[in-house]
Amino acid sequence: MAVNFPSIDPAALYPVAGVTLGWAEANIRKPNRKDLLVIQLEEGATVAGVFTLNRFCAAPVTVCREHLDAVRKGGKGIRALVVNTGNANAGTGEPGMAATRATCDELARLTGLDAQQILPFSTGVILEPLPVDRLKAGLPAALANQQPAHWFDAAQTIMTTDTLPKASSRKVQIDGHTVTLSGISKGAGMIKPNMATMLGFLAFDAAVAQPVLDQLAKHVADRSFNCITIDGDTSTNDSFILIASGKSSLPAITSTDSPAYAALRDAVTAVAQELAQLIVRDGEGATKFMTITVEGGKNEAECRQIGYAIGHSPLVKTAFYASDPNLGRILAAIGYAGVTDLDVERIDLYLDDVLVAKAGGRNPEYREEDGQRVMKKSEIAIRVLLGRGDARATIWTCDLSHEYVSINADYRS
Amino acid sequence: MAVNFPSIDPAALYPVAGVTLGWAEANIRKPNRKDLLVIQLEEGATVAGVFTLNRFCAAPVTVCREHLDAVRKGGKGIRALVVNTGNANAGTGEPGMAATRATCDELARLTGLDAQQILPFSTGVILEPLPVDRLKAGLPAALANQQPAHWFDAAQTIMTTDTLPKASSRKVQIDGHTVTLSGISKGAGMIKPNMATMLGFLAFDAAVAQPVLDQLAKHVADRSFNCITIDGDTSTNDSFILIASGKSSLPAITSTDSPAYAALRDAVTAVAQELAQLIVRDGEGATKFMTITVEGGKNEAECRQIGYAIGHSPLVKTAFYASDPNLGRILAAIGYAGVTDLDVERIDLYLDDVLVAKAGGRNPEYREEDGQRVMKKSEIAIRVLLGRGDARATIWTCDLSHEYVSINADYRS
Repeated sequence: MAVNFPSIDPAALYPVAGVTLGWAEANIRKPNRKDLLVIQLEEGATVAGVFTLNRFCAAPVTVCREHLDAVRKGGKGIRALVVNTGNANAGTGEPGMAATRATCDELARLTGLDAQQILPFSTGVILEPLPVDRLKAGLPAALANQQPAHWFDAAQTIMTTDTLPKASSRKVQIDGHTVTLSGISKGAGMIKPNMATMLGFLAFDAAVAQPVLDQLAKHVADRSFNCITIDGDTSTNDSFILIASGKSSLPAITSTDSPAYAALRDAVTAVAQELAQLIVRDGEGATKFMTITVEGGKNEAECRQIGYAIGHSPLVKTAFYASDPNLGRILAAIGYAGVTDLDVERIDLYLDDVLVAKAGGRNPEYREEDGQRVMKKSEIAIRVLLGRGDARATIWTCDLSHEYVSINADYRS
Repeated sequence: MAVNFPSIDPAALYPVAGVTLGWAEANIRKPNRKDLLVIQLEEGATVAGVFTLNRFCAAPVTVCREHLDAVRKGGKGIRALVVNTGNANAGTGEPGMAATRATCDELARLTGLDAQQILPFSTGVILEPLPVDRLKAGLPAALANQQPAHWFDAAQTIMTTDTLPKASSRKVQIDGHTVTLSGISKGAGMIKPNMATMLGFLAFDAAVAQPVLDQLAKHVADRSFNCITIDGDTSTNDSFILIASGKSSLPAITSTDSPAYAALRDAVTAVAQELAQLIVRDGEGATKFMTITVEGGKNEAECRQIGYAIGHSPLVKTAFYASDPNLGRILAAIGYAGVTDLDVERIDLYLDDVLVAKAGGRNPEYREEDGQRVMKKSEIAIRVLLGRGDARATIWTCDLSHEYVSINADYRS
C-alpha cells in the first residue's frame, strides 16, 4: 500500500562509530516479534531531543525530559536508549511513571550506568498498563545483541502499524573529514507531530556541543517531522532524538556560526526529511503522496496553518484517493484555516503545473481533464500562492482511503 | 445508514402563517430532481441570519450579508429566499457574484420586489460555474408551486449528499398565544459549522423586532448548528436563517428581557437543535451518534475546543465505527486540543456510565468488557471532566466509516 517507498538495503545503512544497537523479543504485546530495542552510546556522545506537545504525554516522554535536563545541568551524559513497542505507556498515571523508572533502573543495573543516563521510549496502544516485568526480562537479550550494524533490525523493532521499516543513511564530507549519519523512524497513524514524530532516532559521529545540538534538533524537527501529517492526530509519544557520538575526526562543533555547523545541519536535515517522508509514504492506507507548498504568506506560521488545513481535510484527502479533481475542497480548506484577514481574491492554486484557480476563482482556462491528468499520479504537488508576503512552508501528507478506516477500526483486534 | 433517524411525517410539519414554499426541477446539476426552492414571506416578516466564517465564502453568502445589512439600515424587509442545490457558487470569483445578482434580479422582476429584498443560497460542488440560465428558467415553476404546506418538499429540495430530508416542527404556547415553528436543514459532509450549518431555515409566526431577532439567531446557532461536526470541514456556504413572520396573535417581542422572549428562545433552540442533530444522524456514512460533553472547564471556549478535538479525531471516529473501546485515543485528542495549561491529572473520562480514566490514568476498576458494552450501542455519551472550573459545552458528532470514504471519493462521479 505504501507510496513509492524506496527499497532499503540493510547493507547500505552505515554503522555510526560509537553507537551500537540490539533488539529482543520481549512479548510486550504479541509473541515472536522484535519489540524491544536498546541503543548504547560510548562515553562522550551528546544527545538532544524534541518531544510531543500533547498534554497527555506518555510517562517515558516525561522521564526523557527529566534526564536530558539533568545532563544540561551538568549531570553525566546519556549512554543508552531503550524503546519498546506494543504499549505506549500513556494515559497510565503514576503506575506508568513507576514502570518507566523501573525500566531505566533495571537497564542501569545491567550496564553499570546511572538511571539518569538512560532515555526511555514507548509506542503502541494508549491507556493500557506497561507489562514492565516482560520488558525488564528482555533487556539482557537486547544487550547481548548489540552491534554497530543493527540499524535495519532496529528500524524493524520499533514498527507498530508501519508496514515497512524506515531508515536512511549517508556519508558527507565536512572540512575534509567524513561524517556518517544513520537514522530510523516509525509511525503510520496518529501522525501530526507537534515537535517531532512518533519516534525518530538519528545518530552521526561528529562531535557537537550540547547547546548547539539542542538548537540543531529543533531546527531539523521543524523542517522534517514537523512538516508531515497523516490524520492530524498528535501522538502522546512523539520523540525525535539526535545523537552526536563524537567519533569522527572532524573537530567538535561548538557554535552555530561555523561553516561546519551549516554543512552538518544540512546533512542532518536531509536525512530527517527522508525519514519523515518515509512515514507519510507508509501512511495508514496511503495511495498518494502529496507535497503541499504554501507561498506568499505574511509569515511561516500562516503558511503552515493553511498547509495543515489542506493536509487534514478528510474531503481533500478522499478526493485525492479517488483521483477526483474536486479541487473546490482545497479552496474551502484554505478559507477555514483560520487566517482571518485572508484576501481570497489574491489566491492562486496550482496542481503540479496546472493553474486551477486564479485570483480566488476558477481559472477560465482550466480544463477538468488537466486536473484529472495530475490527480491520477501517485506523487502530486499542491501549490497555493497567497500573494501577501514572502513567507512559505511545505507540508507532506497522504490521501485517506478505505484502508485507513480498516486499519484503524481493526488496530487492536 | 442514518443513526436512529426519526421518521418524519410530512403532515406533522405545521404551516407557518405568512410563509409559503415552492420548488422546481431546474436541472442545475442532474435532471429529474427537485433542486430549486423559493420561500416567500408576507410583508412585515423579520429575518436574521448567521453565516460561515470561511474566507472562501460563496457568492450568495456575500449577497445575503449585503441584503440583510441593507434592511438593518432601513431598507425594505426581506420577502423571498431562493435556494439552489447542485452547485455551491463558491470559488467562482466575479462571475459567481454576477450569477447570484442575476438570480435575485430575475426573481425580483417576477415578483415585483426589489432585488435587495431577496436572500440567495447555493449548495453543492465548489469551483464550478453556476448554470444561472437554467436556475432563472426554473423560477416561474417554483413560484407557481407556492404552498404553506410544502415544508417536507422544501426539505427534499435542498438535499445534496443527504440521504434523508431533515425537518422539525412544533407549536408552543407563549403568554396564552399559540406560536408555530417549522424548520428544515441539509448537510451530511463538509460539516463543522462555524456560525451555522450548510443550510438551515427556521420560521415561526411570532413577531420579533430586528435587533432581537439578530441576537436570537446568534444565540440559537451557538447552541445547535455550532455544536455539531461530521468531518471538521467548515463549508463555504453555511447559512442559518431565522424568519419571524409576525402572523401570530402574540404581541411583538421587542426586548430580550421579556418572559415571552425566553419562551420563544427556548422553543426555537429546541427546533434548531433537532435540525442540527438530524444532520449528524444522517452524517456521511454514520453508524453511531455521539454526544461529547466537556465539563469543569475554565470557560466554554476551552470545553468546545476539547470537544471538537475529540469529535474530529479520525482515530477516535474509526474506533467508534469498529465498536472498539480503544479509548486512549480520546485522551490523546484531549491532550493535543491546544489547551496548553491543562493539568491531565485532574481529568476523568466517562463512556456513558462507565468511568474509564480517573485522575488522568486508567481507572483501576475499569474493565474492557464494560467499555465494549457501551461501544456496541448506536448512541453513546462521552463525558470529559476537566476539574478546573464550572464551564461546559456539548458537541454532537458521528463515527468515520468505510462508507464516508466511498461517498466522498465518489461524490462527483
